Amino acid sequence: MNQDYIIPDPWSIIEEGFDKERVKSSESLFSLGNGAMGQRANFEESYSGDTFQGSYIAGVYYPDKTRVGWWKNGYPEYFAKVLNAPNWIGIDLKIDGVFLDLNTCKKVANFKRQLNMKEGWYRRSFVATMPNDLEVAFEVTRFLSLDLDETGAIQLNLQVLNSDTEVILTPYLDGGIKNMDSNWDDKFWEITEVESEGNRAFIQSNTNKTNFAVCTFMHNEVYLDGSPTEASPIAIKNETSVAHSYSQHVKKDTTLTIIKYGGYTVDRNHPKNQLQHAANSVLDQASQLGFEELLRKQKEAWAQIWEMSDITIEGDVKAQQGIRFNIFQLNQTYLGKDSRLNIGPKGFTGEKYGGSTYWDTEAYCLPFYMATKNQEVGWNLLKYRYNHLQKAIENAEKLGFSDGAALYPMVTMNGEECHNEWEITFEEIHRNGAIAYAIYNYTRYTGDYSYIPQMGLEVLVGIARFWRQRVNFSQEKQQYVMLGVTGPNEYENNVNNNWYTNYLAKWCIDYTLEQLKKVEEEYPKDYARIVDKTKISPTETKDWVRVSGNLYFPYSEKYEVFLQQDGFLDKEMIKVEDLDKSERPINQKWSWDRILRSPYIKQADVLQGFYFFEDHFSQEELKRHFDFYEPFTVHESSLSPCVHSVQAAKLGRMEQAYTFYLRTSRLDLDDYNKEVEEGLHITSMAGTWMSIVEGFGGMRMMDGQLSFTPRIPTGWDSYSFKINFRNQIITANVTRDITSFQISGDADLYIMVHGKRLKLIPGETVMA
Amino acid sequence: MNQDYIIPDPWSIIEEGFDKERVKSSESLFSLGNGAMGQRANFEESYSGDTFQGSYIAGVYYPDKTRVGWWKNGYPEYFAKVLNAPNWIGIDLKIDGVFLDLNTCKKVANFKRQLNMKEGWYRRSFVATMPNDLEVAFEVTRFLSLDLDETGAIQLNLQVLNSDTEVILTPYLDGGIKNMDSNWDDKFWEITEVESEGNRAFIQSNTNKTNFAVCTFMHNEVYLDGSPTEASPIAIKNETSVAHSYSQHVKKDTTLTIIKYGGYTVDRNHPKNQLQHAANSVLDQASQLGFEELLRKQKEAWAQIWEMSDITIEGDVKAQQGIRFNIFQLNQTYLGKDSRLNIGPKGFTGEKYGGSTYWDTEAYCLPFYMATKNQEVGWNLLKYRYNHLQKAIENAEKLGFSDGAALYPMVTMNGEECHNEWEITFEEIHRNGAIAYAIYNYTRYTGDYSYIPQMGLEVLVGIARFWRQRVNFSQEKQQYVMLGVTGPNEYENNVNNNWYTNYLAKWCIDYTLEQLKKVEEEYPKDYARIVDKTKISPTETKDWVRVSGNLYFPYSEKYEVFLQQDGFLDKEMIKVEDLDKSERPINQKWSWDRILRSPYIKQADVLQGFYFFEDHFSQEELKRHFDFYEPFTVHESSLSPCVHSVQAAKLGRMEQAYTFYLRTSRLDLDDYNKEVEEGLHITSMAGTWMSIVEGFGGMRMMDGQLSFTPRIPTGWDSYSFKINFRNQIITANVTRDITSFQISGDADLYIMVHGKRLKLIPGETVMA
Repeated sequence: MNQDYIIPDPWSIIEEGFDKERVKSSESLFSLGNGAMGQRANFEESYSGDTFQGSYIAGVYYPDKTRVGWWKNGYPEYFAKVLNAPNWIGIDLKIDGVFLDLNTCKKVANFKRQLNMKEGWYRRSFVATMPNDLEVAFEVTRFLSLDLDETGAIQLNLQVLNSDTEVILTPYLDGGIKNMDSNWDDKFWEITEVESEGNRAFIQSNTNKTNFAVCTFMHNEVYLDGSPTEASPIAIKNETSVAHSYSQHVKKDTTLTIIKYGGYTVDRNHPKNQLQHAANSVLDQASQLGFEELLRKQKEAWAQIWEMSDITIEGDVKAQQGIRFNIFQLNQTYLGKDSRLNIGPKGFTGEKYGGSTYWDTEAYCLPFYMATKNQEVGWNLLKYRYNHLQKAIENAEKLGFSDGAALYPMVTMNGEECHNEWEITFEEIHRNGAIAYAIYNYTRYTGDYSYIPQMGLEVLVGIARFWRQRVNFSQEKQQYVMLGVTGPNEYENNVNNNWYTNYLAKWCIDYTLEQLKKVEEEYPKDYARIVDKTKISPTETKDWVRVSGNLYFPYSEKYEVFLQQDGFLDKEMIKVEDLDKSERPINQKWSWDRILRSPYIKQADVLQGFYFFEDHFSQEELKRHFDFYEPFTVHESSLSPCVHSVQAAKLGRMEQAYTFYLRTSRLDLDDYNKEVEEGLHITSMAGTWMSIVEGFGGMRMMDGQLSFTPRIPTGWDSYSFKINFRNQIITANVTRDITSFQISGDADLYIMVHGKRLKLIPGETVMA
Repeated sequence: MNQDYIIPDPWSIIEEGFDKERVKSSESLFSLGNGAMGQRANFEESYSGDTFQGSYIAGVYYPDKTRVGWWKNGYPEYFAKVLNAPNWIGIDLKIDGVFLDLNTCKKVANFKRQLNMKEGWYRRSFVATMPNDLEVAFEVTRFLSLDLDETGAIQLNLQVLNSDTEVILTPYLDGGIKNMDSNWDDKFWEITEVESEGNRAFIQSNTNKTNFAVCTFMHNEVYLDGSPTEASPIAIKNETSVAHSYSQHVKKDTTLTIIKYGGYTVDRNHPKNQLQHAANSVLDQASQLGFEELLRKQKEAWAQIWEMSDITIEGDVKAQQGIRFNIFQLNQTYLGKDSRLNIGPKGFTGEKYGGSTYWDTEAYCLPFYMATKNQEVGWNLLKYRYNHLQKAIENAEKLGFSDGAALYPMVTMNGEECHNEWEITFEEIHRNGAIAYAIYNYTRYTGDYSYIPQMGLEVLVGIARFWRQRVNFSQEKQQYVMLGVTGPNEYENNVNNNWYTNYLAKWCIDYTLEQLKKVEEEYPKDYARIVDKTKISPTETKDWVRVSGNLYFPYSEKYEVFLQQDGFLDKEMIKVEDLDKSERPINQKWSWDRILRSPYIKQADVLQGFYFFEDHFSQEELKRHFDFYEPFTVHESSLSPCVHSVQAAKLGRMEQAYTFYLRTSRLDLDDYNKEVEEGLHITSMAGTWMSIVEGFGGMRMMDGQLSFTPRIPTGWDSYSFKINFRNQIITANVTRDITSFQISGDADLYIMVHGKRLKLIPGETVMA
């Protein structure tokens, strides 16, 4: 563990004491988001110390020119990148002629940050002694509204404790920002207009190339001891920023307050020429409601989210804090309202990893969103990929595939590929399977088949075609093989017959064949449309059957396990526990070629297949494969521990399951990977949820029925989790002795618990 | 073929007619070099059209910061790059107030370039009608002196044909140059002083980071109809350049001549503070000799080179031009005088490929230099690698090897790695074997064993240690395997058990063991020193014996061939001839992953092993492997055709051998790869020589004896080649009917011809 300054608390993330070394880390951990926009926990007042400034708007990106060492055919020339957006939170404070800046204060006492996850706000307070010996009590509360998701609100209170003084408050908007993560130092934004109107100001800007239009805005109100002042601001404008300066004489112990509303209106939601109008309208609403009322609504909105998604843990406050932090951040990042958006690996907390969508969404995040939100959210995530189908077909064409074969990109913002590392971009093709799997997963969990005839079948056909074209017949083996791939274990590149990828490919083809049949029989009109559009024919599907029936899977007779890939057993099979500690993590200590020829596994690979298709294998087979592969797994991906936690729990190894759980749930809070200052690992947070609900709780879908196998880690008194299952909220309470269930809604529901059938009745607590 | 504008001629490269589109191509083809410096055939006078300016100084490089898309552990942070040097050839011509510029002339008639390879000079002439309607006859002759290799000379003659006029001649030096091939637009040079003295001028400069000091200089003389003028120049200096301006009234039909001597003195050869002094001294020598005398010496020096290395071809002028162009360029690039220099893949003709030394030197160039130069040249090439041994050991350490294991870099200038593509840098390790092979090759050809006890054995021990550490024991195969390599066929990456690499590794270990034994017995003092330095022990060598004796080689029982790598037969085995033409070249038409999983071979891989170790295999085995692999070979490396040409000749397939020969010998003249404007393919030119001498001539070393199996391609009347064998020059003349040999020197020599013993007697022509 790298850091442990976050104070354990069930509902809040708390930091006490000011430490300049922690500023960037805390800027990540205390980030705010509301699905539509987000920002790192940068200070409102100026700060001359080390900081990573970041504000982000969902869906607003920039196609940065690719940077490569050695160009390979097929690389994208440009790819979309998360864009640092104009800053609207800034409020400079000049007190008796000196700027308040924590980096230059003589003393900073009682420094505290609190991120209240229950209510969705963030507060920072301190008492500072300034270079001019003025003692200042400072408290600022900030939130990004869930109700009015184009705006956020800041309430900043200031007292000068040892003198009457002159304070100049200068809230501002700043469009002169740039990305840390820019390949060629391109200018990403063009500012088209800077305006000031009374206590409001606006910056109109366009992104270069993509031409997204954004209006950044603010509205400020100044109070003295709670009463509005009549102060009117002096506006200071330049080409890229606008500031409002309020001078105020403040008596000792009097509280000077500024309330600032700010945010963005974007042309995804409004006509381009109406952005300022829309901004005025949202500012009208916010200011009419006022800070307190807007905050009250915020608390309500978060209460509703928690109502459907909370997990409680008794007896382990760090575990409790960890899981809530993960659920909170996932909700800050994506609320599922808009199918044009998706879940970026860093959410609104940093710029790394460029584009927004990875296979993480389908493989890790979808189960969380399906179980904690309304069905529409899962639908929107699937629709996102349907909308990108044509781009996926074009992407496959660039790589030499044809006739409607679709390869979804490794990383994307708008359907185009945003990654350029041949061993990943061109070869880590299992991502295509995860997208098909998500369709299956959505269908079985929600019971809603409609996505498949409406959209999903086209996606499946494109994916099945890709797999068919991607394999070739080996005369040597007299079977179809898949050469030159990278599996989920990215510590192997360009291997032949990665078992997971082959298995997924076969499954995709078989599943597509099944769905074609079902849609033909049950949705003839949709079927006709799809046949017309895709030109799928019996000749083609017959060919698929032939390939699927004769696909090669590497297997070791000796160990009775499927092999991760051809030749896996030629490696020097030294277990991770026998490696010297100084060699770990290998991704920092070893050269790339050494990693590649080692047996070490970055994240579940064969076991990822056992996770997806658990019901295809016996418990005995799972055990054999887990025992074979886990000892070679270094878990150097944030997505690794969760799958292993679920499987260890299934194998009844609760201690191991718990160890994996801890590693995933507090990855960022405790900064295991020493990189939290770059932003949070948002998508892997869904894995933490999975560890509890599917791991400890043992939740599964089996034959259309929900089943549970609840277990409890040693050291926990109890835990509970909620899931939304087909519009009914099921709450499971697990203690050391017994599991009880409640269901909300208006219908009874049969579930399986430890293999026995149990009837849940609304309003009753049912013991299992 | 892409272009065919070069006029066939046995001794010259000739272009006629001015075509702006061909300027950059001709700048490459007409490049000049003298081993110590070189330059593209840029115009002396200003040219506003499309051009690629390039002047280069041997051994003067810049460590450019690495550019990567995705960083991998082990990549070098900086690597050395060929450096564009200050320009000394420039002579601006202002005629009646207008600059002579071929891009703006109304008409350009009689444009001709000639590169006289026999005598080592380059001439360009034309009659141009300028925008001001003046008609100008222009002729410039340039060469880089082999005798005074710090200087070159230019004689420029000008006549204005239709008017008396005012001409301003402005020869200049320009240090304000930059590299096309710069990663981050770094400034590579710092100019420290710009000086003018009479008719001479100097620019003192340092390279940034490496701090090479270079003095660029010029000395100018102006003549009217052959008589010196008294004109003294006006000097124009700025921070990075200096020009001398001569105004001259020139009568119609009078010839105005400027002779310019220029070049570089560098701190590799002189003390840093003596560079200008050295420059003055070389200018004194040059100007005292005068242009004509210096040119006469140039012709003599080239005559000596040709005396030892010429190849004549009767009946095929394009083949004749091609082979002489290749021999000429190799000699322009490297003359073997200085063991700190090496043979860059683009020589002095371009910047691409960064560093100067590839395995090309050992695998392709060494045989040429051994056979056409004195023994010292081969020795210097080997010494170059000995000097880099410590760096090779450090390079291996960076990748996790230890205890003196040495991995020579893929590309280097000073011993450090200059390449950052993991699949090449870390995995294309067969290069290490080529370095050991070169030691063997030098020893058997020259009969000089002394390099091994003096230097080579240490190199061999480092290399053998690397191979030992690079293999691992496979429990599955119960043999040692080598995982994760890239063979010479770079269209495969990260493969297991590349046969060529495994074979070379075993051979290196065995050869090192043999040499250890021999040195122990015959050079005990050297042995003691080496044991002391390397700490080599019987335990270690016993371990080597064990590994070498149990190394795995992939083999197909069915085809009775060694397999290029594990799993090669799983590929879709469609022969190259069955590919649609539109798919070729695959490196331009296919995505990288598609290339990787295809069976197509970029350049000899298994067959490279059969080339190196021909005597290990029967003719039948060669035939089987050639027939198996060549049909899958796309020859998309300039180094590919030559090896196949040699082997096809050996198999008696002269038509095929000739086709391969043509492809290699006129690669640049006919611009097969459509990239000649970036520079020439210098190292592959040695392959052309190899195709004739080893291919058609069938020259080999067998049991310490020189042998020949001469054959002649259909269409040639005769050919002859010369080789320097242990200080005797052997000339072979091959006609359709008979081969005759002459030998110079003072001793008889027995050689084998078509398997029969033949005695060569100095002064006699011996028929075979």
